[in-house]
Amino acid sequence: MNNPVITLGEYSDKASLEEKCVMAPKFDDNGLIPAVAMDAETKEPLMLAYMNKQSLLMTLELGEAVYYSRSRQEIWHKGATSGHTQKVKEIRTDCDQDALIIYVEQLGAGACHTGRNSCFYRKVNLDDGKNPAALSFTKSELTFDPNIVYRNK
Amino acid sequence: MNNPVITLGEYSDKASLEEKCVMAPKFDDNGLIPAVAMDAETKEPLMLAYMNKQSLLMTLELGEAVYYSRSRQEIWHKGATSGHTQKVKEIRTDCDQDALIIYVEQLGAGACHTGRNSCFYRKVNLDDGKNPAALSFTKSELTFDPNIVYRNK
Repeated sequence: MNNPVITLGEYSDKASLEEKCVMAPKFDDNGLIPAVAMDAETKEPLMLAYMNKQSLLMTLELGEAVYYSRSRQEIWHKGATSGHTQKVKEIRTDCDQDALIIYVEQLGAGACHTGRNSCFYRKVNLDDGKNPAALSFTKSELTFDPNIVYRNK
Repeated sequence: MNNPVITLGEYSDKASLEEKCVMAPKFDDNGLIPAVAMDAETKEPLMLAYMNKQSLLMTLELGEAVYYSRSRQEIWHKGATSGHTQKVKEIRTDCDQDALIIYVEQLGAGACHTGRNSCFYRKVNLDDGKNPAALSFTKSELTFDPNIVYRNK
């Protein structure tokens, strides 16, 4: 027997959206909702991407993060190319249900196409007086070689 | 002597955007960039909001989170009404500089207008077979009374 098809709710009022327990995500004018993938164990942010309704439903059905690529304008099953899939551990939604946090187990070496575990590998140098504002690397080492992982893809 | 005015960089190529150390955030077609505020101590996500260029520069200058309210279409110095300001501890940017993580010290009782510490107070019930997909509260207790904090505002 197949699993029943998952559906999403629809809300008409703010109070229900905020205080009830039906998942009724609010997609923006482009049909997208931002989703922040975080490492379920370390709680470090890995990446911020977007989901459309279809990719969110695929995420719920597969148990793996599926995004919508704005640049390629297509469904993006994270890890389909690199093997670095994200196993979903928990999904949180915010008060007005227009943002998602996805706690994942990041399989393979990393989430970032640059070859790093996290896309958030640089921080802003606060108060250093530089203009324009400068960044520094929090983690610069590569955890995998993108030229190998993505070759011939 | 006043502090020098902070400016942001501009990039022309992807490799520089990803591997160099000039802050050159990419704002979307509406002039906005998503910013996820996280508790610097617990690493729990507090809220996801948006900044435009002006509010990001104000954030850098003030050392407190300043967003752009899409609903009110105005600069939103978080905590100006509630007193619950967010003291910036660290700002991270991602590979292509179109998303920000802001680690903050959340002053006052909470970040969420519903009266909770975090906007992400509900999680999706994975695999419970309910349709539409259901949520449950991870933390339901109010940390402040929004009717008091926001009254007469």
